[in-house]
Amino acid sequence: MTNTTGLTINGDRLNRNVNELAKIGRQEDGVVRRLAFSLEDIAARDRVSQWMQEAGMAIRIDSASNLIGTYPGLEPDLPVLATGSHIDTVPSGGRFDGALGVLAGLEVARVLQENDLLLQHPFEVIAFADEERTMVGSKSMAGSAPENPEHYITSDGVSIQDCLSRTGGNWERLPTARRTSDDIACFLELHVEQGGVLEVLECDIGVVEGIVGQQRFRITIQGQTNHAGTTPMHMRRDALTTAAQLILAVEDMARHFPGDPVATVGAVQVWPNTINTVPGFVEMCLDMRSLSQQEIEHMLAQLKRKIESVAVATRTKIRIKPELELKPTLATAEVQSLIVESCEDLGLSYTHLPSRASHDAQEIGRFTDMGMIFVPSREGVSHSGEEYTSPEQCVQGATVLLRTLFKLDRYYLSLT
Amino acid sequence: MTNTTGLTINGDRLNRNVNELAKIGRQEDGVVRRLAFSLEDIAARDRVSQWMQEAGMAIRIDSASNLIGTYPGLEPDLPVLATGSHIDTVPSGGRFDGALGVLAGLEVARVLQENDLLLQHPFEVIAFADEERTMVGSKSMAGSAPENPEHYITSDGVSIQDCLSRTGGNWERLPTARRTSDDIACFLELHVEQGGVLEVLECDIGVVEGIVGQQRFRITIQGQTNHAGTTPMHMRRDALTTAAQLILAVEDMARHFPGDPVATVGAVQVWPNTINTVPGFVEMCLDMRSLSQQEIEHMLAQLKRKIESVAVATRTKIRIKPELELKPTLATAEVQSLIVESCEDLGLSYTHLPSRASHDAQEIGRFTDMGMIFVPSREGVSHSGEEYTSPEQCVQGATVLLRTLFKLDRYYLSLT
Repeated sequence: MTNTTGLTINGDRLNRNVNELAKIGRQEDGVVRRLAFSLEDIAARDRVSQWMQEAGMAIRIDSASNLIGTYPGLEPDLPVLATGSHIDTVPSGGRFDGALGVLAGLEVARVLQENDLLLQHPFEVIAFADEERTMVGSKSMAGSAPENPEHYITSDGVSIQDCLSRTGGNWERLPTARRTSDDIACFLELHVEQGGVLEVLECDIGVVEGIVGQQRFRITIQGQTNHAGTTPMHMRRDALTTAAQLILAVEDMARHFPGDPVATVGAVQVWPNTINTVPGFVEMCLDMRSLSQQEIEHMLAQLKRKIESVAVATRTKIRIKPELELKPTLATAEVQSLIVESCEDLGLSYTHLPSRASHDAQEIGRFTDMGMIFVPSREGVSHSGEEYTSPEQCVQGATVLLRTLFKLDRYYLSLT
Repeated sequence: MTNTTGLTINGDRLNRNVNELAKIGRQEDGVVRRLAFSLEDIAARDRVSQWMQEAGMAIRIDSASNLIGTYPGLEPDLPVLATGSHIDTVPSGGRFDGALGVLAGLEVARVLQENDLLLQHPFEVIAFADEERTMVGSKSMAGSAPENPEHYITSDGVSIQDCLSRTGGNWERLPTARRTSDDIACFLELHVEQGGVLEVLECDIGVVEGIVGQQRFRITIQGQTNHAGTTPMHMRRDALTTAAQLILAVEDMARHFPGDPVATVGAVQVWPNTINTVPGFVEMCLDMRSLSQQEIEHMLAQLKRKIESVAVATRTKIRIKPELELKPTLATAEVQSLIVESCEDLGLSYTHLPSRASHDAQEIGRFTDMGMIFVPSREGVSHSGEEYTSPEQCVQGATVLLRTLFKLDRYYLSLT
């Protein structure tokens, strides 16, 4: 087996590609706007496709419009090792979110090509379709994409059927995009953290423990609207003071549950919302995330008990209605270990942490082994033109990706 | 001196008048809409003016458009005893708020007229101009009306100058509306409670201890907007959970301070107010009312200490900005005693209570003796077409007004 210890990423080329791709959809204020299935997205897909071909990869687009470049392996019958991410953005996105993972995968292929190397396993770089909204690309691979086309919110009201067909996909044949652990041995995604943990801890690399599960709820509190002057305190059924109790209970729970869950009341609407009225009705949105499904369920049970006691004490009616449930996806322990080994080989500092944002890896990890590598985001900012990861940090991430892929290649071979 | 013990109100006539006046500005849903200075208000003023004249009163309109009916007294040089309230309404008002006090005063004059009686003091019934918005009528009498015409918010953007001139007033001569304790010995106002205390306590009559002082504040909390998924709990500077602490502190303070103050956060605005964002900014409105100015100041001082400690603990910037300050007006102790005596004479149940809403009496009470009589509001509802006080309760209030005026007539004579 080839000694791959000395191989490195061409960092200048990687960062040049990052900046070049960012020109497609760039706005005046540094924002990148490359909505999935838009003309800008299509142009970016064409550019990446061309780069993949130049790197010796065979190109295909599956029915879910995932752009897949395959670099051959020494043993073509083995399942593939895959990497990648996405190149679509939110309406006001940055240069790194998604793009870095795809371009680092491309850079790995170039290193193989330049060194006349083949892995044992075939190697895929995937640019997943529409990560930022529908996740139709990775969900179709996992077989979890909604079958009703009306479930998809796409750009400018264009149907998902049209979106797919304009990018080489095919709604009617969507199930053919389905993959299994028989043909993808492992998926490894490099991504910017989109949070501030690595920066605060001064770590080069985040070894992702998994992608948190997420539950969203709508909570409504029905009290009684009353004159704020003439209604004595003890006669009130104030929906807002009731809401305040729940907002603090949610925060307190998340702070004290094990495993660093997060829980957020991000939006609150008060009725009638005037200075001289005791609020009669409040609606608020709750978002809870944890790496442990059990922990989410414990938090929810505790919250429901709290809601019952608060409703009695405040003489209000409180309803909690689920709006979204995504189960956690854990990163494969062995893959995490190999990322750690790579960091240690390279003398990079690292920490384990959960990913609290969604990624394509969360879908792929539902059916096969999965790992994620995070690099720092300056001040934790993402989904913004201000999003920033330094050229050096990008190269560090890509180098860890490269080394870990070599290790995975050996590891999965050893299992066969 | 005439024995007045047997004199009573003509209850049918009073209630007929209440219903007749309510036809002016009545909407289909039972709401009365009679905005100050509108055509409906003018029609109602004409109707009341006509009724006053029929009751033997001399009519004048002062420069602040207060409609004043004077019934002569045996000693014309004595200061007057005055009663009254207002006949303008909020945009969706009811039949009783204001109107009952004016019509009960009118009814007192009719009783005097029908019995060929004169009080020792001249007797005035006042329909104050625009109680519901500018209080220009009672404030001008107290000399506390703003001098800048732009301070007045009036219907349909009409200037206060035009509003006054269309109803017989005169902006240029506004200071001439000023009264003093030399010409009004005492002002006694009958009004519906606009709260639910009397109904809950099953009392016929409320003996008002005074009109609470009121302070309003705008509180802003600057935290940091962050991704609700990727920001661990301990790294957050959540403006909404900070706001929740203050909302509960305000409620707790008002519940535990002596003297039954009220304090309300009625309006809250959250930025950016989306489900997956840690709120970075909150603005909220605080309204505090108490009969004791000292108590309001103690509450405010305690709140400010709380704000300082919460700001440190949550790493947020909290600002509190005063928006309104109205000092309390206490009802004259002797006047309260005479209202109590009247209730006891009539076998009516009563309780002392503060008025937590504004009334013309709060302005008049700044320069002369003042008392207020409350009758119950069904379910505490006011400023609504649902506002309701039964015919019997209206008559009970008017009867207490009548008897108390006789007592005041004797009392103030005894002081001369």
